[in-house]
Amino acid sequence: MNDAKVVIIGGSAAGTEAAIVAQRHHKVGKITVIRKEERVLVPCGIPYIYGTLGAVDKNVIPDALLGNAELVIDEATSVDRKSQTVTTAGGKTIAYDKLIIATGSFPVIPRIPRVDMDNVFSVKKDIKYLQGLEKALSGAKNVVVIGGGFIGVEFADECGKRGLNVTIVEMLPHCLLLACDEEFCTTVENALKERGTKVLTNKTAQSIGGAGKVEYIEFSDGERLETDLVILGIGAVPNTELAQKAGLAIGEQRGIKVDEYMRTSDPNILTAGDCAEKVSFFTGKPSGLRLASIATREARLAAINLFEPRRKNEGTLGVFATSVADVSIGVAGLTERAARQEGFDTVIGEAAAVDKHPGGMPGAKQLQTKLIFDRKSERLIGGEACGGMTAGEIANIMATAVANKMTADQVANMQVGTHPALTASPIVYQLVNAAEQAFLKM
Amino acid sequence: MNDAKVVIIGGSAAGTEAAIVAQRHHKVGKITVIRKEERVLVPCGIPYIYGTLGAVDKNVIPDALLGNAELVIDEATSVDRKSQTVTTAGGKTIAYDKLIIATGSFPVIPRIPRVDMDNVFSVKKDIKYLQGLEKALSGAKNVVVIGGGFIGVEFADECGKRGLNVTIVEMLPHCLLLACDEEFCTTVENALKERGTKVLTNKTAQSIGGAGKVEYIEFSDGERLETDLVILGIGAVPNTELAQKAGLAIGEQRGIKVDEYMRTSDPNILTAGDCAEKVSFFTGKPSGLRLASIATREARLAAINLFEPRRKNEGTLGVFATSVADVSIGVAGLTERAARQEGFDTVIGEAAAVDKHPGGMPGAKQLQTKLIFDRKSERLIGGEACGGMTAGEIANIMATAVANKMTADQVANMQVGTHPALTASPIVYQLVNAAEQAFLKM
Repeated sequence: MNDAKVVIIGGSAAGTEAAIVAQRHHKVGKITVIRKEERVLVPCGIPYIYGTLGAVDKNVIPDALLGNAELVIDEATSVDRKSQTVTTAGGKTIAYDKLIIATGSFPVIPRIPRVDMDNVFSVKKDIKYLQGLEKALSGAKNVVVIGGGFIGVEFADECGKRGLNVTIVEMLPHCLLLACDEEFCTTVENALKERGTKVLTNKTAQSIGGAGKVEYIEFSDGERLETDLVILGIGAVPNTELAQKAGLAIGEQRGIKVDEYMRTSDPNILTAGDCAEKVSFFTGKPSGLRLASIATREARLAAINLFEPRRKNEGTLGVFATSVADVSIGVAGLTERAARQEGFDTVIGEAAAVDKHPGGMPGAKQLQTKLIFDRKSERLIGGEACGGMTAGEIANIMATAVANKMTADQVANMQVGTHPALTASPIVYQLVNAAEQAFLKM
Repeated sequence: MNDAKVVIIGGSAAGTEAAIVAQRHHKVGKITVIRKEERVLVPCGIPYIYGTLGAVDKNVIPDALLGNAELVIDEATSVDRKSQTVTTAGGKTIAYDKLIIATGSFPVIPRIPRVDMDNVFSVKKDIKYLQGLEKALSGAKNVVVIGGGFIGVEFADECGKRGLNVTIVEMLPHCLLLACDEEFCTTVENALKERGTKVLTNKTAQSIGGAGKVEYIEFSDGERLETDLVILGIGAVPNTELAQKAGLAIGEQRGIKVDEYMRTSDPNILTAGDCAEKVSFFTGKPSGLRLASIATREARLAAINLFEPRRKNEGTLGVFATSVADVSIGVAGLTERAARQEGFDTVIGEAAAVDKHPGGMPGAKQLQTKLIFDRKSERLIGGEACGGMTAGEIANIMATAVANKMTADQVANMQVGTHPALTASPIVYQLVNAAEQAFLKM
């Protein structure tokens, strides 16, 4: 027990997790969470509000998770590192011995004319704003989602579930192209199309037009698409305003600079989540990945390392999952494309099999896997799984194998359990067979 | 390419997998599979024939998997190690350079009076016999399953799906007690009871009675239970008859003795599956585990190591999964009870959370996890997960962590991906939180 005052700025996934884990690991005088939101949203649940969940209220992180931490609903406006205090918009001055900055990110707003027009929405983690989107969607027939990344395809699919006429517009040749390899992008695109979602790729929005509210989008090729509503899902930028004002160092990817213990350039200030700079597990280079699962892991590290370095961040591996149009996909580590871009000589193993056995088990779905190995070290550096509802946890098996630097030989010799209702048969278990295929090519 | 003749005796999971993997790894003169069954069953699918699948025919391993291997439907009756030949009941003599024995196991038949009576069935991997069970079940109302292990509870649940009145009889204080810790046994028992299955524990069948066909079971406490049909699901014993006749060494657990490359006491004969002796990954002691997933892994090792030692078996870890009465359970490594019996000073971490997030996502189920660590090394030595359909693959995450000898600190710092429809939220992700809890107790 020490009588230290710990202050956390931000109450989304990272801030909440930091408050929970700080209480688990340290007996301190006081833990205070300062956040400007009355209630906080489950970040990854936001697209699901508009179809599956049906209401913004059903996607709230319960404050009970904060335990004995004091919650201050107010906006932190400045940090004075000399006096070790945080000042708020409401006029409070809150002293800290250790501070965790978890101010998250802002949605990227493309610089196109009239992007601030009515019925053009971005994915802000703001309950009132998102209730406004709910209302606007209720009056819409045609919706355009700009950006075919995870959030984009999830929003499109959920809007489709409401019976709306949905078009995804993606600048790159495929949706999800930064998250997985082309073959998996195509599978997801085809599933979306089968559900009635239009997918426009290699297409860049140039301007937005309409009288009062949005009526159409104009693309760089001169084409126009009529719409009642636009959702912008093109990524997020770190919210480092407060950190910058306080003079903390900023990294190459515009996040707050951190060491491997989540400490900023001020030894009494740590950071975690979307606002924190990340480095790749594979290359040590700055990484632009921003995910709630990364944010909460960093928050655990920041909370544990508050008073002394205890647990290390060996770099961001990148583990994703999504599920749209009845196709689930999980990805861990580098895609084949990303691995090649980083200069790895890759060896690929692929295997597909139904995710239950025999194939006649109800609900059995084909699950396609791809493992990416580095020829030099023979280590697993990435994996993708696409199929039914187990793809998310299969990504976590792959992530565990990657983190442990398992070779193709070792993955092919993995001990796994199988069951008719829960997994592929042991003869065709996908990860083992994919690794074996890669092993034979080494 | 060599012109070696490889012969595999047995065509169930291990034999089939050995034939597949031998072809992948070696270009040899000829691969021959000798098996006595016209068609081979998916072993773990057998209980599902009687409820979910609806017919024996739907649970067959396709022979197409054997690829270019020659299939001889005949019974191998002896192995002459001097002349390197196998003789069959059909009068064939088949020469081998390398032989893999994969003769599997027999169901254990308890030594109780009149156990050979009509309508008393064991779990034989024999299509005609199992069709006989199908027919007998069609005429039955009351069924008793003796043995509450995996096969027993699965049979009971599947018979329940047919509308039969089912009772499980288990000698030990709980069903599944050799597979998981008591709290999980209780969860499964309660789910079975809610579905209408009766569960009698601490109960030993002493005799079977009836006129012509079974009419009742008598227990050691004198009680009687009327029934139309009995299914015996009390385990399996290695089928080593052929190996013993050939003079191969037999192990403590009555399996064919093997080294870490699956070689028997004869350098030209390897073995895999239920007939092969196993040792524990944790203690190096003989292990009585017999599972299709272990059999196929051993078959891969035997096939790879046919001509020279290439890939090692570092001992059987034990990874199980089952799903009964809408409860799925996955187990990897040692249970708390087994770990203590082996003399480990255990540290337990437990965490439960819904398997989707927020909790209002359709189909979300509570998933309870328990991790067992060794206090001395701080390593993960076992894990259990009980909840929805992802429990099987979660067991495989735990197995990968156990195999890599991850410590509580490392598991708590695992990089995982999360998604509303596919996993728990990153704040409450079960394995990470269970490991953190154990870490704090070290």
